[in-house]
Amino acid sequence: MPGFLQRFMPRDGDFFVLFRKQAENIVSGANAFTSMLEHYTGVPEQVQRVKAIEHQGDEITHQIFRKLNQTFITPFDREDMHELCGTMDDVIDLIDAAASRFVLYRVDRVRSGTIDLTKVLAAATAELSCAVHAMESPDKALQHVIEINRLENESDRICRTLIAQLFEEEKDPVQIIKWKEIFEVIETAVDKCEDVSNVIESVILKNA
Amino acid sequence: MPGFLQRFMPRDGDFFVLFRKQAENIVSGANAFTSMLEHYTGVPEQVQRVKAIEHQGDEITHQIFRKLNQTFITPFDREDMHELCGTMDDVIDLIDAAASRFVLYRVDRVRSGTIDLTKVLAAATAELSCAVHAMESPDKALQHVIEINRLENESDRICRTLIAQLFEEEKDPVQIIKWKEIFEVIETAVDKCEDVSNVIESVILKNA
Amino acid sequence: MPGFLQRFMPRDGDFFVLFRKQAENIVSGANAFTSMLEHYTGVPEQVQRVKAIEHQGDEITHQIFRKLNQTFITPFDREDMHELCGTMDDVIDLIDAAASRFVLYRVDRVRSGTIDLTKVLAAATAELSCAVHAMESPDKALQHVIEINRLENESDRICRTLIAQLFEEEKDPVQIIKWKEIFEVIETAVDKCEDVSNVIESVILKNA
Repeated sequence: MPGFLQRFMPRDGDFFVLFRKQAENIVSGANAFTSMLEHYTGVPEQVQRVKAIEHQGDEITHQIFRKLNQTFITPFDREDMHELCGTMDDVIDLIDAAASRFVLYRVDRVRSGTIDLTKVLAAATAELSCAVHAMESPDKALQHVIEINRLENESDRICRTLIAQLFEEEKDPVQIIKWKEIFEVIETAVDKCEDVSNVIESVILKNA
Repeated sequence: MPGFLQRFMPRDGDFFVLFRKQAENIVSGANAFTSMLEHYTGVPEQVQRVKAIEHQGDEITHQIFRKLNQTFITPFDREDMHELCGTMDDVIDLIDAAASRFVLYRVDRVRSGTIDLTKVLAAATAELSCAVHAMESPDKALQHVIEINRLENESDRICRTLIAQLFEEEKDPVQIIKWKEIFEVIETAVDKCEDVSNVIESVILKNA
Repeated sequence: MPGFLQRFMPRDGDFFVLFRKQAENIVSGANAFTSMLEHYTGVPEQVQRVKAIEHQGDEITHQIFRKLNQTFITPFDREDMHELCGTMDDVIDLIDAAASRFVLYRVDRVRSGTIDLTKVLAAATAELSCAVHAMESPDKALQHVIEINRLENESDRICRTLIAQLFEEEKDPVQIIKWKEIFEVIETAVDKCEDVSNVIESVILKNA
């Protein structure tokens, strides 16, 4: 099946360029976030770096929407492109939301296990970028889609374990409120990676 | 109006078979959950039973999506079928999410009132199954849609009362965090039954 | 570009009348809610007033859905009209959800800063109403869309500040749970105003 979307490339190359740019921006965001938790100093500046990446994401999202609204023939279903763009925007928004909570909640040290969850998020964004880059080679793209689903299950399992541990180990309810939300926001970011992969899978199957 | 969808049956019978199977699976999940709260022993095993039902639901969801992506003419709007399938999947996911929290949060006894809420959920899933089975007889299906709306209002009322009681009676903030979330997840499962019924109503009105 | 939708008016005027009615109803809800916080006595009665406005919103939503399902040619994309109607319904639902929590959680005094957030919500609904009324004059409507985006950023900023203050000033975890949720529900109502404005922007760009 490789190449099934190539026939649209001369006309609609820009859409793919923008989607790839957006995917790479998401990977940068996830890496900047992981790196912040691994080197937990100068946190407000590191959160600002994630926020700057999120702003760039907004810019790309608007470019895609504008182009989408002004283009008559799109490389695949307009509605699916809209959904792809919207779900990719959700991923970077949630990475920013997770990072910013470390400043907002004045978190002074990172709980053990948090980085395990964040690494799964970073891995899911890397697979997401591979899937977006491989959209013209469906068989390859579907491998990445399957891997994202596996990572989502893993993040779900880790998140549940972290929350169970939190309720057992932490006695301060205020800390429970803060950390439960942090874990859930990170896990939701991985969920959104799966939403992106679902759109990609659906586009590929429709065009197969 | 009865029979308005029958003309599609020879060709698309399988879709209806799959939607009915999904609806019956949701009813099983809601009943297994209610039964767990009524006989609150061997909880981890009972939660595993709900989880197994949720896995079966995932299987059916994927069957429908695959079939949908490979079928040119669908019995009703492709987009509505997608929505119907997705919202039904949300219902069983949330039933599983509610059940699993009893293990995750090490809940040792069921708060009074919880079963009242769960029974409304079970009733809503039973109506949902009736509505799905009656999709070829719009007048009958619409009766079940109305009943689901009524049950959603009831679950909303019960959930609010339970949360108000929780804040008044429970002094331990950790217990408040856990139970507030349990009540909200159950109520959200009923909300999702209403989302399913909204799709059914819309399909019926469009085809009337 | 003014007047681009006028050609549909003789045929589909009712849709615009209903959308305008819905927008005005949302403004009433936001104003009743702000007024309740400014004059914090007879709270249950004031919450009932907001709830009554929400019920009227439900009525208008159902009228639009019914009309939509029975109309063959719509003034703009059926799907966008559905989305517009659904997101407007979400705004008034969330205003009601915010108001009702003051009774549910037996809030005896309004925390400082809450009204600042509510005023941004009221301003966003006023802009939303202007945008809906100006849908036939795209250039004017887009000005209101931009203003709604600005107000959403402002509400996000205020909400984060209020939650950070809450964690610093309030020592009672139960109060933190209640107020964090109140702030988040109000902020989500403003988010939903932005969702409405996104639909309006998309409709305008498509028809430009």
